[in-house]
Amino acid sequence: METEVLLYEGKAKKLFKKPDSKELRVEYLDQATALNGQKKDAIQGKGALNNQITSILFQLLAQEGIQSHFIKIISKHEQLIEMVDMIPLEVVVRNVAAGSFSKRLGIEEGTTLPQPIVEFYYKDDALDDPFINDDHIAYLGLATEAERQQLRTLALTVNRALQHIFAQIDIRLIDFKIEIGKTAQGHLLLADEISPDTCRLWDMATNNHLDKDIYRRDLGDILPVYQEVYNRLEKEFSSCI
Amino acid sequence: METEVLLYEGKAKKLFKKPDSKELRVEYLDQATALNGQKKDAIQGKGALNNQITSILFQLLAQEGIQSHFIKIISKHEQLIEMVDMIPLEVVVRNVAAGSFSKRLGIEEGTTLPQPIVEFYYKDDALDDPFINDDHIAYLGLATEAERQQLRTLALTVNRALQHIFAQIDIRLIDFKIEIGKTAQGHLLLADEISPDTCRLWDMATNNHLDKDIYRRDLGDILPVYQEVYNRLEKEFSSCI
Ligand SMILES: Nc1ncnc2c1ncn2[C@@H]1O[C@H](COP(=O)(O)OP(=O)(O)O)[C@@H](O)[C@H]1O
Ligand SMILES: Nc1ncnc2c1ncn2[C@@H]1O[C@H](COP(=O)(O)OP(=O)(O)O)[C@@H](O)[C@H]1O
Ligand SMILES: [Mg+2]
Ligand SMILES: [Mg+2]
Repeated sequence: METEVLLYEGKAKKLFKKPDSKELRVEYLDQATALNGQKKDAIQGKGALNNQITSILFQLLAQEGIQSHFIKIISKHEQLIEMVDMIPLEVVVRNVAAGSFSKRLGIEEGTTLPQPIVEFYYKDDALDDPFINDDHIAYLGLATEAERQQLRTLALTVNRALQHIFAQIDIRLIDFKIEIGKTAQGHLLLADEISPDTCRLWDMATNNHLDKDIYRRDLGDILPVYQEVYNRLEKEFSSCI
Repeated sequence: METEVLLYEGKAKKLFKKPDSKELRVEYLDQATALNGQKKDAIQGKGALNNQITSILFQLLAQEGIQSHFIKIISKHEQLIEMVDMIPLEVVVRNVAAGSFSKRLGIEEGTTLPQPIVEFYYKDDALDDPFINDDHIAYLGLATEAERQQLRTLALTVNRALQHIFAQIDIRLIDFKIEIGKTAQGHLLLADEISPDTCRLWDMATNNHLDKDIYRRDLGDILPVYQEVYNRLEKEFSSCI
């Protein structure tokens, strides 16, 4: 193996780069954080579950024609991805009121939204990822208007695909965030991860949380819950990917 | 005088309605509030100054073709206005970074913005007037997409007119908020007030604050500062209104 360099160490993953390669190796970490890193815990096995969940989801999305940075899984807690130039935006899609949306607008958690709602957040730890509007995106030079519309369309397309995937394993997709990068050719590409860390997932029968809210709200151990999401995905979809 | 009823008592004004009339009498109060009402003080003379400042500004805007609810001033601290159905939105226009914008995005106060930035806030005291985006406006049913675009256009038109007015009295218009209502015919009409309570105004020569930031930030007495704004407006424009 050539000498790799650690490109970036985030709150959930480490990215390694080989010289002269456009591929990155991602290590999913056994670490949970919340409140912009103020709350932080080591959780053995979480990295492997998120890596495997993300890998399944990106493969299923690819089958629906939604390309991502995902190349292949290389171990339980590692995958290969295409390196992109990340756009510092978190694009959130909401199907049901929850979390900050419920608090901000005074809408009871669990209220179904008649249409999906899209929100943009400026990914900047020092500023605590502020919620921003279209004028802010333009001012900060984060995306052109055309790109912003593409991001919105992509987010809504991913939403429909994920809703369909999760419905097959009796999970309601409440909301999720995605991150998007630009390839060397300037194309937008779905990147980062899609996991119970980045989605709100409620069991269809019980409304139980199957996501990071378990950790954020101290509702119990996340490992069995993430394992449950992985098991359902694996059982339903392992034969088709 | 027929018996009036107190229609609404806000943080800065009282609205009185005569039976069978579409006109309201507004009493501007000698009261300053900040932090959504958490900070509150009686300030003798403030009501009269804001009433007179608003009256001049609405008349100058009317000369630029921007209609408002303003009918006439009836005493130092009272005016007659057209009653409208208020849209619970605060529309903010920013020419220079300041206040919550500076904090939210980490942009130094005083930074000139290359283009004016428009923001919408949901006027709801219980929720602390949250900053919202276009999808939220649609979900909450606050305005149709066509209305939202009209609100934006109106806000930017008011901005250009106010910038021009204030430049003539050596004041830089940093930012401001407006509120808009709907007439019985469904037309949008500029309403509420435009005063040092609702604008950030900096002296062109010194950059001194000539607005409510004096109160919000405990920088001194607001009365002389509001008086200064009124004096400059009166001196420059009393002959043409
Ligand atoms: N394909 C990619 N190319 C380059 N960077 C990526 C790619 N996918 C994700 N990233 C970035 O990798 C970083 C590590 O992920 P993570 O640990 O979740 O970080 P963070 O703490 O910033 O959320 C993130 O900043 C994310 O934007
Ligand atoms: N033309 C109008 N018709 C009806 N209501 C109005 C009109 N202009 C302003 N208002 C409303 O009058 C109320 C009183 O003003 P104010 O004291 O500033 O209240 P607040 O504390 O809600 O800001 C505000 O809710 C404002 O929206
Ligand atoms: Mg992350
Ligand atoms: Mg007010």
